[in-house]
Amino acid sequence: MIGGIEAGGTKFVCCVADENMNITDRVTIETREPEYTMGKVFEFFKDKEIKSLGLAIFGPIDVDKSSETYGTILKTPKLAWANYNIYEALTKELKVPVEVETDVNGAALSEYYEGHGKGRKSVLYITIGTGIGAGFVSGGEVINGLTHPEMGHVLIQSREEDFDGVCPFHKNCLEGMAAGPSILGRYGVKGTELPADHEVWDYIGDYVGQALMTYTLILAPDIILIGGGVARQEQLFKKFKENFSKYMNGYLSHKRYIDEVDDYIKYPKNGQDAGLVGSLYLAKKALDR
Amino acid sequence: MIGGIEAGGTKFVCCVADENMNITDRVTIETREPEYTMGKVFEFFKDKEIKSLGLAIFGPIDVDKSSETYGTILKTPKLAWANYNIYEALTKELKVPVEVETDVNGAALSEYYEGHGKGRKSVLYITIGTGIGAGFVSGGEVINGLTHPEMGHVLIQSREEDFDGVCPFHKNCLEGMAAGPSILGRYGVKGTELPADHEVWDYIGDYVGQALMTYTLILAPDIILIGGGVARQEQLFKKFKENFSKYMNGYLSHKRYIDEVDDYIKYPKNGQDAGLVGSLYLAKKALDR
Repeated sequence: MIGGIEAGGTKFVCCVADENMNITDRVTIETREPEYTMGKVFEFFKDKEIKSLGLAIFGPIDVDKSSETYGTILKTPKLAWANYNIYEALTKELKVPVEVETDVNGAALSEYYEGHGKGRKSVLYITIGTGIGAGFVSGGEVINGLTHPEMGHVLIQSREEDFDGVCPFHKNCLEGMAAGPSILGRYGVKGTELPADHEVWDYIGDYVGQALMTYTLILAPDIILIGGGVARQEQLFKKFKENFSKYMNGYLSHKRYIDEVDDYIKYPKNGQDAGLVGSLYLAKKALDR
Repeated sequence: MIGGIEAGGTKFVCCVADENMNITDRVTIETREPEYTMGKVFEFFKDKEIKSLGLAIFGPIDVDKSSETYGTILKTPKLAWANYNIYEALTKELKVPVEVETDVNGAALSEYYEGHGKGRKSVLYITIGTGIGAGFVSGGEVINGLTHPEMGHVLIQSREEDFDGVCPFHKNCLEGMAAGPSILGRYGVKGTELPADHEVWDYIGDYVGQALMTYTLILAPDIILIGGGVARQEQLFKKFKENFSKYMNGYLSHKRYIDEVDDYIKYPKNGQDAGLVGSLYLAKKALDR
């Protein structure tokens, strides 16, 4: 058996699976302070006899394996978790190999192996909700540098004169202009309360389209999958693709970026369990190390 | 012996080296039409008994090894070379394994193995001159997706109201706003004719700083090396670093991106021969395949 954890801001989902990746048991634990939540996590895995564990967790987290603080959660609004070394805690308690990645890298892995990325060379997974994050998997490997990617914060060209963006670090980066809180920042209401033909969808569609061009120029992925609450609005999703094509303007001649845009930019296949399935692939990687 | 070619728009430099990468012979050939230039290339290598060959060449070129047109030069202003399959031509004539990459990927390789990237995990090499291109090497491997990166065309936020950029595809992308022709497009003169305190350096320093942030958020490189004629202006180079730090605003907490910016963003170590040395590392890779 192997174990997986998808750790989010509101809940931790833990599971065990057999070698064919069939999930045989799972539990959901509320995200409170580490002592409470991790206590429940340890309890769940205690008698499960797992051989390895994968963890897909909210960032930022130190993913540099040569770093002394590998697996430590970095500065985060979830204050009780800042500076908590969750890798060390799991390794010490469960005494099995542990592999740690961000939740979006986990979701990218699950799409690469079991979703729309199956058979493709690389997968860029993006989530657009309360924040904007992305994970990139190429040839089955998660691509991190010294840190995991923070692609949601790339700068974009604003089309608005009376809105400066809400990112506390960069104001008008993509996240500051296109994530959920930007809608609240503009109009004082949530996106779900605005009609499908509201101007905000034109803006967000434009900005995300710009970012998709930037990601494509730098990573040249084989497929881009976009999840998250904001992206779920279908009238908006269409604009992502239109603006991507408009901005690229035929510059890269590969057919994936021109003729096949409807297949290049898609919704993810794996739904709710994307991160959890990804964590099991991380557990497999931990075994192979 | 192994062979290397750095193929540029004005000249092809060919060389042979021993197994310790000491160059023992070289020749420079004018870039005219393929028949002339490649004829001279074949002639040079004919009796050199090389075991493999590396080629670092101007883009765009098909670098997708599973593609039927691998090694073919794509649409380019160098019209005589468009659709020319230089990989096939070299392989057929010289009958040795050939590895093809863009010139900037070659330069990134040379910095990774013999330059400022030695001992570092990854190298991003950028050239800012007539155009803007970049190559990325991580763990000794050139990182390409379905196509090689075209990072010079990322969108940036303009700080000018009376200049729209000169990129024929995107107008105000980085290349359209910060490469050499953008200076000519603004003022009708070359950058070398403008004083060091001219406003244009503030603009270009700003735009390149934005792009360095974008690259860092997506790739998290260990070091960035910036070459090319425009970057050679020292007053400008300082602004790259200042603007990078200003835009990042401490967002990524890794020391390379905060305390060590002067060591993170540097001039390349390898000068004129960067691409040629890179081509020899490509030849080594061709041998190991």
